[in-house]
Amino acid sequence: MKKKIGVVLSGCGVYDGSEIHEAVITLLAIDRAGCEAVCIAPNIDQKHVVNHLTGEEAPGEKRNVLVESARIARGAIVDLKDVRTDDVDGLILVGGFGAAKNLSDLESKGTDCDVDHELIRLIIDFAVQDKPFAACCIAPAVVAKVFDGGTVHPTLTIGNDPEFAEKINKMGGKHQECAATDIIVDEKNKIVTTPAYMNGKSIGEVAEGIEKAVQKLVEMI
Amino acid sequence: MKKKIGVVLSGCGVYDGSEIHEAVITLLAIDRAGCEAVCIAPNIDQKHVVNHLTGEEAPGEKRNVLVESARIARGAIVDLKDVRTDDVDGLILVGGFGAAKNLSDLESKGTDCDVDHELIRLIIDFAVQDKPFAACCIAPAVVAKVFDGGTVHPTLTIGNDPEFAEKINKMGGKHQECAATDIIVDEKNKIVTTPAYMNGKSIGEVAEGIEKAVQKLVEMI
Repeated sequence: MKKKIGVVLSGCGVYDGSEIHEAVITLLAIDRAGCEAVCIAPNIDQKHVVNHLTGEEAPGEKRNVLVESARIARGAIVDLKDVRTDDVDGLILVGGFGAAKNLSDLESKGTDCDVDHELIRLIIDFAVQDKPFAACCIAPAVVAKVFDGGTVHPTLTIGNDPEFAEKINKMGGKHQECAATDIIVDEKNKIVTTPAYMNGKSIGEVAEGIEKAVQKLVEMI
Repeated sequence: MKKKIGVVLSGCGVYDGSEIHEAVITLLAIDRAGCEAVCIAPNIDQKHVVNHLTGEEAPGEKRNVLVESARIARGAIVDLKDVRTDDVDGLILVGGFGAAKNLSDLESKGTDCDVDHELIRLIIDFAVQDKPFAACCIAPAVVAKVFDGGTVHPTLTIGNDPEFAEKINKMGGKHQECAATDIIVDEKNKIVTTPAYMNGKSIGEVAEGIEKAVQKLVEMI
């Protein structure tokens, strides 16, 4: 039986959803590690739609996170609310603004943000069951918020952005600087993070970090 | 100076645009080969929008091929009509139904299809200038149509689908069977093709073929 790794998506496109390169590199790394990827996304509306050619919001357009994430998953995707801890052996949260706009409202509310309740339920239960998970790009900040106010203080990275590092520390996490090609491992809490496009300058750099993160995540299962 | 490789996209999602895995794997392979990717798409409406969760057409929705392709390109994309042969050293056409619905109407009209005129102009000029190009998945059938009726009879693969192989032969190409993990090289016409998801059973298989195709394309420059 192949190990199953849940890949949490938040739409399809860096400015209003999942960062597409990060998502595909994650899926490829999981396959090459001999594991099976299970794509997961919440069945909710996107915060908004951004025209990725102009960078401007597309007024009046509406898209659904699960439906758009299905583009990356080639249709094979599960609604987040239907995923139970036992369904997967590991979990990875892909980055992109969707993590800060759809999976949470971190982008607009900062450290006072809310996180999707189904995502909280899954991550907290992973922690309780001592199962490993990973996050890349901006998603580690969402992980910090999930544990904010509790007794778990995860060591995480979002690269080298001092403003976001401070936010993570304020939410009870412990930020560590990291290159895009590398990972930070919280052995105690079984959390692997990599900065990806938070400070990655090329798709090759981002891939190197994500490949290491997936490899480490699989080792921890 | 890095060699530049044009990556022709046709939207964002396998059922109505570019196959996203193929596109990202191509971009990563180009970066890892020490080259620079130049994303390219036509500024036209998509044929239609497909809900990738249900596989059904989304009635009334309209999306633009250049705008949606920009999601894969993280905003860095050029309108096909503005690309000249001298701008890039090599070219690769990504697959997905977008190649057969937006770059051409192959999906509805078969061998009687039309191909986007700007794409014809670029491919024919590449052939005239003896510059190499590649195509994956269903896109090789579009390449066959571009040369249909002329004196160039490209050797191409779309995998092992007998129906599409016959179409390629009818349009003047010479189809060769190929595994998803491998490539077919037409040395005379400097064309590299790989079946990708036409017969690929996993993202790993598809990546193996595309990585070989990009490597061979770069060698031919």
